[in-house]
Amino acid sequence: MSRMTILTEADLRKIVTLDLEAVACVENAFHALATKAVAMPPILRLDIPEHRGEVDVKTAYVPGIEGFAIKISPGFFDNPKLGLPSLNGMMVLLSAQTGLVEALLLDNGYLTDVRTAAAGAVAAKHLSREDSQVAAIFGAGVQAGLQLEALTLVRPIKEARIWARDLGKAEVAAKQFAERLGIVVRAEPDAERAVAGADIIVTTTPSDRPILQAEWLEPGQHITAMGSDSEHKNELDPAIITKADLYIADRLSQTRLLGELHHAIKAGLVEESRTFPELGEVIAKAKPGRASDRHITVADLTGTGVQDTAIATLASDRAKAAGAGTTFES
Amino acid sequence: MSRMTILTEADLRKIVTLDLEAVACVENAFHALATKAVAMPPILRLDIPEHRGEVDVKTAYVPGIEGFAIKISPGFFDNPKLGLPSLNGMMVLLSAQTGLVEALLLDNGYLTDVRTAAAGAVAAKHLSREDSQVAAIFGAGVQAGLQLEALTLVRPIKEARIWARDLGKAEVAAKQFAERLGIVVRAEPDAERAVAGADIIVTTTPSDRPILQAEWLEPGQHITAMGSDSEHKNELDPAIITKADLYIADRLSQTRLLGELHHAIKAGLVEESRTFPELGEVIAKAKPGRASDRHITVADLTGTGVQDTAIATLASDRAKAAGAGTTFES
Repeated sequence: MSRMTILTEADLRKIVTLDLEAVACVENAFHALATKAVAMPPILRLDIPEHRGEVDVKTAYVPGIEGFAIKISPGFFDNPKLGLPSLNGMMVLLSAQTGLVEALLLDNGYLTDVRTAAAGAVAAKHLSREDSQVAAIFGAGVQAGLQLEALTLVRPIKEARIWARDLGKAEVAAKQFAERLGIVVRAEPDAERAVAGADIIVTTTPSDRPILQAEWLEPGQHITAMGSDSEHKNELDPAIITKADLYIADRLSQTRLLGELHHAIKAGLVEESRTFPELGEVIAKAKPGRASDRHITVADLTGTGVQDTAIATLASDRAKAAGAGTTFES
Repeated sequence: MSRMTILTEADLRKIVTLDLEAVACVENAFHALATKAVAMPPILRLDIPEHRGEVDVKTAYVPGIEGFAIKISPGFFDNPKLGLPSLNGMMVLLSAQTGLVEALLLDNGYLTDVRTAAAGAVAAKHLSREDSQVAAIFGAGVQAGLQLEALTLVRPIKEARIWARDLGKAEVAAKQFAERLGIVVRAEPDAERAVAGADIIVTTTPSDRPILQAEWLEPGQHITAMGSDSEHKNELDPAIITKADLYIADRLSQTRLLGELHHAIKAGLVEESRTFPELGEVIAKAKPGRASDRHITVADLTGTGVQDTAIATLASDRAKAAGAGTTFES
């Protein structure tokens, strides 16, 4: 007989939000990834081309964290035709001591949204200039808003430009983000102009061809690319990887296969065997971060199991403290 | 908002048993694996050595089956010290059309027991002599009993011998199996004598060194080895693979890494690139099965995601028909 807590998306939205504690737990997870004997196997990936469906399963065990999450992330891109969201998902939190299921987090992808944005905050905190005030966000979806919000947690952001392929969506998003965050946000129809004078650029789209060009970049800018989590996705001009003074991977073995780095390797601009620092190594000060206010830095975020384990544990701890969720025995 | 059915182990034990329908659904799954564009990614494996823990995640999409299962199987081998079972687990059944979670099967490994035994029945049905009457079972655990029961579903088994390292356990098991199945079952302290005159031999142990020797085998015997699901497990003398007239894998890419074949390759007895038929190919008659009553046949079963998808779908269909389980919205 085992006893578990079931938390619905509604439960989770009440107890977990994008805040400094969420950012800290993801930061700690990356720190652990660089300094402890973390076990993070390659992503399990299942494709169902008949329905334009794909499922990723991620997991990681972080020594010192009592539980570990197994996250199931389906993306079925014909769902909107059926009136359903493309992205869904859930996490299972298991005890790292016994393997028993402790909690089912039926978040429909909400916790992934939060931990992905939190990683954007961590990257900006460690790589962008401390005085960064202007953000350019590529994309107008949920993650665009969360990434902008994440930046405001760690940098004194005063202004944001939103560029999206669909200007109408960018305008709607800009209005919403401005209201929510209380900063100046405007839609910018021209991607190059969105980038001019920005301190931090975050790309959040599922694009399969570069939307940010190397020649647009200016000294001192930081770029976080978080849209690419599979081979065919590509937001950055591959030349950005070589033009940047510092390129950081969330997990190098993953960005070589799935990230922006993958496209720079494919384009022949970067040797496959070339090593780059990982975000956790910069956090742990094992590798240097930004060395000058004039440097261009790039964070290539493909999403890691340690982030899932971190956010699932935070959610479970808060649920216990709040007495949230439904207890279920099996 | 998505709606799912939660089925507990108690629910599942009521609606799914080891019967001919369970055997047929697993047989169909193997048939599909050989004949359809099944997507079955490599197993995701996480190790937590501090707690002697390991977790396998398996999945497979079978065209023609409406759902697909993602199975989480933890094994934590210090659990018995805490009064907990070593093996646990659950399955998540998702729609192959939308990726939405349809059912959570909190089976604590029960469905895996059933689908593993069902695969033993399928192997015996297609590889053993039709007149097989005597079974030798190595091991005295849950799977030993289920594998023997599985044989009785497809062959006219009249007598069984149980060999286990611990004779006391073999004796207790033999008594139980005899009562449950209504056939003659006795514990046999000598492994070689258990094998002498047996028509079918099934090994069901977690042994890490061979317990069945090649020189004990007699013409006409069929061997199913189902205990090996990780690199270090090994039940068959590697010479059995070369001595056998026919060796069949459940999934060749897996038995090369995890199965008895793996040890024959490591021992230098079999070339790594050598191909062998898979169970599904024999079922589909794409490759020949047993060609003579004097042949020795071997089935190397490491466990496949298609079996999980098949049994989870059967469980979900029967739950719907019976109105079983708890509906949950998230």
